[in-house]
Order: sequence, then C-alpha cells, then structure tokens
Amino acid sequence: MKVLIVGLGLMGGAYAYRLKNKGYTVYANDLDEESIEYAKSHSFIDDGSVNAKDYIEIVDIIILAIYPQAILNFLKNNSKYFNKNQIITDICGVKSSFVLEATKLSEPAIYCSHHPMAGREKSGVKYSKECKFEGANFLITPTLKTPYSVVQTLTKLGKDLGFKNITAMDIYEHDKMIAFTSQLAHAIAVALVNSDNNPDNTKNYIGDSYRDLTRIAMINDTLWSELFLENKDNLVKYIDSFEKNLDEIKCAIKNDDKKELEKLFKSSTVIRKEMEKK
Amino acid sequence: MKVLIVGLGLMGGAYAYRLKNKGYTVYANDLDEESIEYAKSHSFIDDGSVNAKDYIEIVDIIILAIYPQAILNFLKNNSKYFNKNQIITDICGVKSSFVLEATKLSEPAIYCSHHPMAGREKSGVKYSKECKFEGANFLITPTLKTPYSVVQTLTKLGKDLGFKNITAMDIYEHDKMIAFTSQLAHAIAVALVNSDNNPDNTKNYIGDSYRDLTRIAMINDTLWSELFLENKDNLVKYIDSFEKNLDEIKCAIKNDDKKELEKLFKSSTVIRKEMEKK
Repeated sequence: MKVLIVGLGLMGGAYAYRLKNKGYTVYANDLDEESIEYAKSHSFIDDGSVNAKDYIEIVDIIILAIYPQAILNFLKNNSKYFNKNQIITDICGVKSSFVLEATKLSEPAIYCSHHPMAGREKSGVKYSKECKFEGANFLITPTLKTPYSVVQTLTKLGKDLGFKNITAMDIYEHDKMIAFTSQLAHAIAVALVNSDNNPDNTKNYIGDSYRDLTRIAMINDTLWSELFLENKDNLVKYIDSFEKNLDEIKCAIKNDDKKELEKLFKSSTVIRKEMEKK
Repeated sequence: MKVLIVGLGLMGGAYAYRLKNKGYTVYANDLDEESIEYAKSHSFIDDGSVNAKDYIEIVDIIILAIYPQAILNFLKNNSKYFNKNQIITDICGVKSSFVLEATKLSEPAIYCSHHPMAGREKSGVKYSKECKFEGANFLITPTLKTPYSVVQTLTKLGKDLGFKNITAMDIYEHDKMIAFTSQLAHAIAVALVNSDNNPDNTKNYIGDSYRDLTRIAMINDTLWSELFLENKDNLVKYIDSFEKNLDEIKCAIKNDDKKELEKLFKSSTVIRKEMEKK
C-alpha cells in the first residue's frame, strides 16, 4: 500500500512514522523542507517533496494532515491528477463544513473523511513520536454514497496506526459530538486560564484538578480558531447550555441553597461515574 | 507525640495511617464504630473511641478531619477539656468563615488551621491508603497571634505526612486562592457534566481532555456544598469572571472573529505554559 501524507506536522509525522513501520510505502509533501528532511533522516518516510504532484499519481491513499481551510485548496489545485482507484481522506477535527464539497472536488477519486481522536499539546514533526494512538478513538465519517470497501480500507488504516476503537458515524453527528466532548472542553480551559488575575501566585498552589482541567489551554491557535469557526452553531449551542448549568450552581450559592447544590453535585457524580465503566 | 484525629473518613484515615507509621501515638474518634474497628485492625491507630473525651486530655495535637460545620460544634462541646499545651488544628478547605471563632472556642489551647491540598474522588477510611500526599501542597494558615512554635510543629506534621511544599498564608488569601484554583474548577466540571444531554453517547467518544476535565465532577456533595457556601463571596466573584472570559470566546465565534480567537488562545497558552515551569 502506497500512501501520500500531505502536511508533515505533529499528526502527519505520527501517521508517517507508524505506517512506515507497518510496511506501507510512505511519501510526504510539505511546504517546509526542514520537516521533510527530518522525516527522511529519521526513517518516517520513503521520500518527500515540496511538490505533492511528484507522488499523487502513484499512491493508493492520500492523507490530508493539513488545516481545514487548506484541504479544499489542495483538492482544487490537484484534482486533475486524481484517479478512480484512489482514496483521499483527511484527519480534520470538524467535518460537515467541507466534506461534501471535498467529495465533489476529489472525483474521480473517492473522498472519505476520518478523525483520529488523539494529539499532544505540541506541534511539529519533531514531536510526532510522542503521539500516543493506543487506546484512542478513530472515527470514520462516510457519506451515504461512500463504498463499503473504502470504509474497510480506512478501518485497516486505523488499526495499523494503533487505534483501539474504530467506528463509523455520520458527519453531522460527528460535529455535534465533537463540539461537546472536545471543543467545549477546550473553550472552558482557555476561559479559565484567561480569567486568572494572578497567575504568578496561582502557580504556587495549583493542585491536580486545576492542572488537569487547564492542560488543554495550551492550544494551537491557528488550528483551533479554524476548528471552532467551522463548527460554530454546534459549539455556541453547547457553550450556552454549559453556562446555563454553571448559572444554576452560582444561583444556588447566592441563595445559600445547600439542598440544590447537593442535588447538582449528586447528578454530576452519577453521570460521570457511569462513564468510568466504559 | 500523641495525636487525636477526630473523624476517620478518607483524610482522617490517611493522616492516622501515615502518622502511626512515623512513630506518633495515634488516637481516633468517630461516630461510626465500624470505621474505628477498620482503622484499629489495619494498624492505622493505637486506639479509638466514639467518645473524643477519652483522649482529649492526654494528647498534644487534636486534628479535626470533619466537615466545616461540625468543627465549631466539636469545639463548643469539648472546650472544658482543652489545656494550654495543646494545639488544635483542622484540615478544612475553607478558613475565613470559622477560624477566628474556632480560635476563641479553643482557649486555652492554641488553634491553628491548615489545609492539605490532596484527596481522592472517594470517601471513607477504606480508601485512605490511596491518598497520595507526595508532591502536594500543605498550607498552614496562622493568624497574627499564632505563636511561631505552633507553625513549626505543624510544619513538622506536614513533612511527616509526606507533603512536598509546606507554606504559611493568611486565611483570607487562602480562601481567595482556593476559590479560584479548586472550587471554581469543581463548579466547572459539575456544570459541564450536567450539561451533557446524551451521556450514553458521550461515553463512547470521550478523549483525554473531557476525561481529565470532568474527573472532579465525581464529588462529595455534603462536603463540597458546605465548602462552596462557606466561601460564597470569593467563589461567585470568580465564576463571574470565568463566565465573562467564556463569553468573549463565544462572542468571537458568533462574529467569525478569527483574529480575536487566536488572541485569546495565545494568551491562555502563554499563561499555562508558564505554570509548567514550576
């Protein structure tokens, strides 16, 4: 199996490194020659180039590990080189804003998106080996017209990368789910850290809870601002719902309503404990 | 050194177990005979009783590991047995609402409060051995009149328990700091979990970020509702400030303001990275 990875960042590099070790022939395209050189000298890839065209016509799978807005540009610029035996996929954290257009632009190749739910609070191919995929979710998001064989090929890709749970889901369901479980969590962490009026003091006294809660406030600003905006309706809805629940706690405190606080704490404890069972 | 631990819950049990191993003579008082029996049969304590009076007069330090509202009741009921060579302390997570009154009620003994910044999402003496104090903060909160020798004794206690950073701070500063770094974090986690409108689905797709952020939503409702209400002014202020910062993110999303989002993400990244250096 020959793959072309477009974008040798943290994730693109992690895909390259792991697929190469699994026996795939791995080509890479990046605008940055240093990243290509690094990947080559560390045996992450068989070959790399600043021109994607050098490999597009000879590979079975093209994996776009680039920012959401760059995906459509790549497809537009290279559509004339695609062929009907190819699968094109991307690793983007939102789907519904671009997948239908990407599917059209990719013809005659088959476009089928996926989302590896893993990462690190670092960027760049030099940290790719630190990316842990073991135990993580790999979501494949076919449309109604995606051939089953393509879902099978991507399932194998997920397994070869080391992911634990590989499931298929609708792109709209995906974006709702990700707005709640991932994007809202990041928005909360950023707001919490930004609301700190004395960080120099805070840092001497933080316990595990603050540390865990805010780790994801170290965030790739270019990538995540795109992700937030591409999924804005879902995300705003969940921020509103979260704020409503936080206001309930605030109200109970203001009203010295111990019974109500206990009720809210009992509710969260039951829901969260249920999740530990998975 | 002879100590009496009042309240053989998760934390009281952890204190007993560790101090006994360090050569202290440890007595315990609890309303629950089973907890006493467990602590005795597991060599956490030298002796225990449902009557605190059995030990009050013979110990050097009384450690109150009970809920905030129970502390003042204990002191009122037992003040006639205290003597001037004794230190009375508590492990409560808020201070300013009761420490001055506790100091008066304890006379002629010396009252000096402290706060072990560690715990587990479990309760009961059976989980006490799981409490890790290593690497955690131990805050001593003397008043202006507290003798230095008492702070020294509590510093030694913190070291013997295994805490890493032992510092003294004013009770009002303590309550401000704890409202931000601990209580706000718990309120956020509870609100996030309670805002989940489809937990059965969520649990299949959560990644590390949601898991880390919500672990503390499993919370002792009786204890934490008291802690929140005893520190209400500080906590409400910080919830307001957090909500203001979250609204800034929400506004930027609604306005498709990528530059503003990037600015907010850069700010949180810089502040949070600085904390990693500690």
